[in-house]
Amino acid sequence: MNTSPLPMLPPPARPGDPLGAIDTPALLLELDAFERNLARMQAAAAAAGVALRPHAKAHKCPAIALAQLQRGAVGICCQKVSEALPFVRAGVRDIHISNEIGGAAKAALLAQLALHARMSVCVDHVQQIEALASATRAAASRLDVLVEIDVGQHRCGVDDAPAVLRLLDALGPHAQLRFAGLQAYQGSIQHLRGHGERRAAAALAAERAGAVVAALAAAGQRCEVVTGGGTGSVEFDLASGVYTEVQPGSYVFMDGDYGRNEVAGALRFEHSLFLASTVMSVGNGERCVLDAGLKSLATDSGLPGVWGQPQLHYVSANDEHGIVQCGVDGGAVARPALGSQLLLVPGHCDPTLNLHEQLVAVRAGRVEALWEIAARGLSR
Amino acid sequence: MNTSPLPMLPPPARPGDPLGAIDTPALLLELDAFERNLARMQAAAAAAGVALRPHAKAHKCPAIALAQLQRGAVGICCQKVSEALPFVRAGVRDIHISNEIGGAAKAALLAQLALHARMSVCVDHVQQIEALASATRAAASRLDVLVEIDVGQHRCGVDDAPAVLRLLDALGPHAQLRFAGLQAYQGSIQHLRGHGERRAAAALAAERAGAVVAALAAAGQRCEVVTGGGTGSVEFDLASGVYTEVQPGSYVFMDGDYGRNEVAGALRFEHSLFLASTVMSVGNGERCVLDAGLKSLATDSGLPGVWGQPQLHYVSANDEHGIVQCGVDGGAVARPALGSQLLLVPGHCDPTLNLHEQLVAVRAGRVEALWEIAARGLSR
Repeated sequence: MNTSPLPMLPPPARPGDPLGAIDTPALLLELDAFERNLARMQAAAAAAGVALRPHAKAHKCPAIALAQLQRGAVGICCQKVSEALPFVRAGVRDIHISNEIGGAAKAALLAQLALHARMSVCVDHVQQIEALASATRAAASRLDVLVEIDVGQHRCGVDDAPAVLRLLDALGPHAQLRFAGLQAYQGSIQHLRGHGERRAAAALAAERAGAVVAALAAAGQRCEVVTGGGTGSVEFDLASGVYTEVQPGSYVFMDGDYGRNEVAGALRFEHSLFLASTVMSVGNGERCVLDAGLKSLATDSGLPGVWGQPQLHYVSANDEHGIVQCGVDGGAVARPALGSQLLLVPGHCDPTLNLHEQLVAVRAGRVEALWEIAARGLSR
Repeated sequence: MNTSPLPMLPPPARPGDPLGAIDTPALLLELDAFERNLARMQAAAAAAGVALRPHAKAHKCPAIALAQLQRGAVGICCQKVSEALPFVRAGVRDIHISNEIGGAAKAALLAQLALHARMSVCVDHVQQIEALASATRAAASRLDVLVEIDVGQHRCGVDDAPAVLRLLDALGPHAQLRFAGLQAYQGSIQHLRGHGERRAAAALAAERAGAVVAALAAAGQRCEVVTGGGTGSVEFDLASGVYTEVQPGSYVFMDGDYGRNEVAGALRFEHSLFLASTVMSVGNGERCVLDAGLKSLATDSGLPGVWGQPQLHYVSANDEHGIVQCGVDGGAVARPALGSQLLLVPGHCDPTLNLHEQLVAVRAGRVEALWEIAARGLSR
């Protein structure tokens, strides 16, 4: 029909743009709140004398990892081997894969990455050790290995010190695999709402981890690292005396789900992550329709909140539509105008970031930069 | 540490590989079932004398769109303007944006695309018409415009013929915007489980659409196109006498949610989409852990099923873990071995495809091709 070149997709925003000029749906990072979150977590870890190794599965964004390292983080965690690749490419030189891995392809990639960065990984079965031994032998690289122990989540991990010792026997013959310690993560307590309830659950996890550490010490086996903890339990993990390292991720953003946790201490984090959306249709009733649904935000931990507009309720997410129920205010429906922009607070940050290619970094109502979510979709 | 080049992420599979060699998690398309699904829907539309315009939001994959067009589809639907871009790039020349759009950036991109393909879009407000008029004027392009009517979903769309006529008055002065007809989509009936219940609901939607068409005809306004329908209602939409065009999407895959619909007629579709996953940890109890969670499959319409293994139940999805409860068979827990591959049937295909870059097309247990999910993440 035409010889003009095909259009390219323009970026969602350009530095200097006001918020209203952002093409939606787009993920925004409010830099002032984000930077305060980084500073608070780093200060808390430093005060406790515990290393901070933030989890990059929450953000998948090299620019954020570099900001965390610059403030004192000792390295980062990734949840998958492929996820680590863009961080190594961006210059991160210390990455813990906080997970077991299966299959020769993953072990081979990890062994290659270990030529460029200090890499560690979890095991809970001798078969995994053999795969790692074979891959590092082929690549002529070295890996740190952490044994994962189950401290109550009943997901991965071995149950007790004798099981750890059996894995250490299997590690023994492989000089290129170094036992670095234990991973003791309790994911299922992170979202317990009550502060006291969460404290008690974290204490139980730390007690279980401490008991394994003590039994290993009695068997002559020192654990250099005991890593674990998340945003919901970190204040207790830092004070536990058991963890040498914590790996929180969501604190940089504070999603809707974490926002519903009761916080009693001084370690508070702010919402810094928002999904900018546009009112694309207004019905006759008390509803309006946004351009952001299941493909722009994760709903596994609840629907998003509408930031700063308590009379508006996001009540249903279709693939590319969000239905908002508008409250009645002073006898009239308080419905935003067609074309107006609403900011949403996603229910769960990790899988929401995983839907987007870019993070629009904003400060004082203006776009400051676009950050690539380079590890998006890297789940292998 | 090393001067060797950084590793690249290898593809999840290569043509000729057996299924067991696929690096997981990876989305598989079983080509035989897929091709039968395409043929069945095309034959049903042809028999009814209704045009088939499959919805590309379900697959986001140009190779699939081209396969649909080759079998007789008149064009495709996209849900967002940016989503259409890779399809135009792949040579698709007839695309309906089955949605309203907001903002000048989207209208400008649509007007540019209209220089390369016949593009149509929905409206339900005069403000949208003005944005489209301005953008097409600037681009010197032409657009087809469909007025969306609300036939029961209460999402977007105007309510009745007088409201349609008011929008046609606003279209009138803009010669580059052509009224092409109505969109009458009822999304909320697609997953009604009972066949009779779904038939009755589809009849009501068609009746509402038919009444608006008749009222417009009485006012001298012909509707060239009446488009709508989805995989759940398509057999009724085809027989309705109201729809000139249907826009089903999920029939190519048949996800878990559509699989739970009761089917009474001859128009049956098969599961062709699977998520290949690997057992990455085996606990002591009756569980095992897969490497596929919230970042590899959408759970908004339920957790995935485990294909061909009724004793295994995927009971919980974490970000990158899937917990599988293993049933007891003959007194022993029937637990798959560490490292073994399981195929999952995703609960909801559209947002699951939106998590992946590639579709591994397989036939008779071998990889045949890798297809790019080129519109993944394009929600603007």
